[in-house]
Amino acid sequence: MASVDVSVGLLGYGTVGSAVDRLLTENADDIERATGHRLRVVKALVRDPLKDRGFQPDGEILTRSFEEVRDDPDIAVVAEVMGGVQPTADYVLELLRAGKHVVSANKQLVAQRASDLFAAASSAGVQLRFEASVCAAIPVIKVLRESLVVSNVHRVLGIVNGTTNYILTEMENGSSYADALAEAQRLGYAESDPTEDVDGADAAAKMAILASIAFGSRVTLPDVPFEGITEIETSHLRAAQEMGLAVRLIGSATLVDGALDVRVGPSLVDRHHPLAAIEGAFNAVMLQGDGIREITLEGPGAGGSETASSVVADMVSVIGTTGTGFLQNDPCWRRLRRLPRGELRTPAYMRVEVDDRAGVLARVAECLAAHEISVARLIQHQLPDGAVLHVVTHEAPTGKLESAIAEIAAMEEARATPSALPVISDRGVAGLGRS
Amino acid sequence: MASVDVSVGLLGYGTVGSAVDRLLTENADDIERATGHRLRVVKALVRDPLKDRGFQPDGEILTRSFEEVRDDPDIAVVAEVMGGVQPTADYVLELLRAGKHVVSANKQLVAQRASDLFAAASSAGVQLRFEASVCAAIPVIKVLRESLVVSNVHRVLGIVNGTTNYILTEMENGSSYADALAEAQRLGYAESDPTEDVDGADAAAKMAILASIAFGSRVTLPDVPFEGITEIETSHLRAAQEMGLAVRLIGSATLVDGALDVRVGPSLVDRHHPLAAIEGAFNAVMLQGDGIREITLEGPGAGGSETASSVVADMVSVIGTTGTGFLQNDPCWRRLRRLPRGELRTPAYMRVEVDDRAGVLARVAECLAAHEISVARLIQHQLPDGAVLHVVTHEAPTGKLESAIAEIAAMEEARATPSALPVISDRGVAGLGRS
Repeated sequence: MASVDVSVGLLGYGTVGSAVDRLLTENADDIERATGHRLRVVKALVRDPLKDRGFQPDGEILTRSFEEVRDDPDIAVVAEVMGGVQPTADYVLELLRAGKHVVSANKQLVAQRASDLFAAASSAGVQLRFEASVCAAIPVIKVLRESLVVSNVHRVLGIVNGTTNYILTEMENGSSYADALAEAQRLGYAESDPTEDVDGADAAAKMAILASIAFGSRVTLPDVPFEGITEIETSHLRAAQEMGLAVRLIGSATLVDGALDVRVGPSLVDRHHPLAAIEGAFNAVMLQGDGIREITLEGPGAGGSETASSVVADMVSVIGTTGTGFLQNDPCWRRLRRLPRGELRTPAYMRVEVDDRAGVLARVAECLAAHEISVARLIQHQLPDGAVLHVVTHEAPTGKLESAIAEIAAMEEARATPSALPVISDRGVAGLGRS
Repeated sequence: MASVDVSVGLLGYGTVGSAVDRLLTENADDIERATGHRLRVVKALVRDPLKDRGFQPDGEILTRSFEEVRDDPDIAVVAEVMGGVQPTADYVLELLRAGKHVVSANKQLVAQRASDLFAAASSAGVQLRFEASVCAAIPVIKVLRESLVVSNVHRVLGIVNGTTNYILTEMENGSSYADALAEAQRLGYAESDPTEDVDGADAAAKMAILASIAFGSRVTLPDVPFEGITEIETSHLRAAQEMGLAVRLIGSATLVDGALDVRVGPSLVDRHHPLAAIEGAFNAVMLQGDGIREITLEGPGAGGSETASSVVADMVSVIGTTGTGFLQNDPCWRRLRRLPRGELRTPAYMRVEVDDRAGVLARVAECLAAHEISVARLIQHQLPDGAVLHVVTHEAPTGKLESAIAEIAAMEEARATPSALPVISDRGVAGLGRS
């Protein structure tokens, strides 16, 4: 079959955009072998065409006019790598309506505007792909949409923010939170304002996208409560390590009897669990489903060339599947109800500091029993002026775990603020910390 | 777009075949949403249609006549789940020539007959897919062919045999080889004749397939030297653990200056490396390439429903991409030369038992120096009647490592047989065992 030239447009020509252009140029032969098409960037929308750039584009492709991209009848596919939600969403809508496939690397755009965008794509009969919006080069969207079609995925667990994972693993190695964050900034993993990373908001947007695809039901930002790692202290990490657990910022999306729970928060992961092995700025997503048991994908979660590699893979996939008529459909086809927040069941770890008096252990145990929380493992350590209880519970509703912790915090024997974190273990919790 | 019925044929209706039929039946709606097609098994070739089966097929689909499958004009795609190389290869060739897409779960067939099969597929304009032939439900072939098109993958590292990984992790937990093997057989991970698993032949066939796809150059079984785990002893595992290393049966495929090295053998993996975290009967494949750095996919490497899930995903992908005209091409498009076996460079761990006499350490060190092998780390332990040296080397050609070990074995101070294993570490070897 003869090779066909495909003209590509870019919205944005920064780190990712120039890397896309470079990959398309340098790998034109590979792409032709894989698809029969030669892709070439013919127009790139930028704010300032005269700015000095790392990869100097060929000829006259830079333009300040969006209309030049939209109205170029040769352009079949456009990569949106400019970021932001506005005017980006308007541009993407116009492109889709003009019959151009769009590939986006923009997590906020996809998390906030997926409904409109898919409606436009579907009615124009073009595709919208967004692999690069979550976990850079890790092809988790493709695997969910194309490989796990019959797997009835019922749970997605992810480490989807590299900055916080870097900070937590550095803290495990003895750094303070402040030092680890400063080092992450020095290495370029964290922004100069790291708020969205460390407070969990970035991970929440990614989990909204992953949950929407995994369960076929739109999950928006307000559906994803999140908590970050700013309250984690080195002493928590040490206690967790003693119990055979690692602290990770985990996004979870769970299907429970037809209802959906999506959340992000620090969790304790059994050290034999695949997610406990994810170190540094890496990302990983575990997909659990009928038949497949679990598949975990791991890799770098950020980076210009990693992100560009996903953008190009999406363009190649679009070209390999145009005309089949279905991949342009909105992957969300049903509307699942939300599980009330307190109903998600999980094992948990609790840390309770108390005065070392007779009867205090009994009072804590009674409180847990009153909330129908069953204890899998308990260790009591002496403190200089009191005692600390490390409790690992069996699965219990998060609402009951929260009520019990609040009640324990109110006891007159309680010292410091007791804390509870969900535990992630595939082997049950009874064996925790044994090896 | 209206849904289209697609008739599917099966070669074989055993564990995997019946699971494919069940998945297609139970997930018909999911598949229709993803592809616009309803897939239905209309014919399945079996030896004995009257045999009692776990999942009873609808109506009269079982047949003893291959021609009934081949000559049914309605059948668009056939899943080969009967196993064996003959007559399977003849059947698959005839099906491809008859214009039917074929999906195969058969690693020996693909490893031994890929050239013929792809030539037939290509000239008939149909696809041959084989995701399930390697690592069951882990979509590594799809990721290599579709997501990493522009990634210039230069190294593939895999734990691609679950039986041996189960045995090795049980041995790390204190089991003997014999007990671990017996337990693997009891759990159904190992065949009653486990030779192909424990001697590395099964992993070698899978690595031949993975290397062919990753590098676009046909790798056949004779190209893949393999060594199994039968010589691994509990004492090796203990020494490795002390150095911060885990023993794993690793398949590696490496591109070195345009030449290809593929091999399977026991290796020592830094405990911070993702492959050291793979426990039990799981498989994992790490893909290293320009731009993406590394992506690791992990999951169950065997199982009826896991394998069937990959077969169905391949069928869905075939249907989603027919008419694009390129995925039927042989993924092997070039012919790379083989790297001479001794030229692959790797760091290594050596264990040398010697008489405890003056000068012996110097002789070992001189021998290494004479072969230009540089030592990264050395620990000497006293034995009741001698000494044992644990040596971790910097990267050196495997040929020189083997010569040095042979020379050390011939020294009169040498006791027992010294051993050398490659070390896999992404952080260099200098830090090994420090934490």
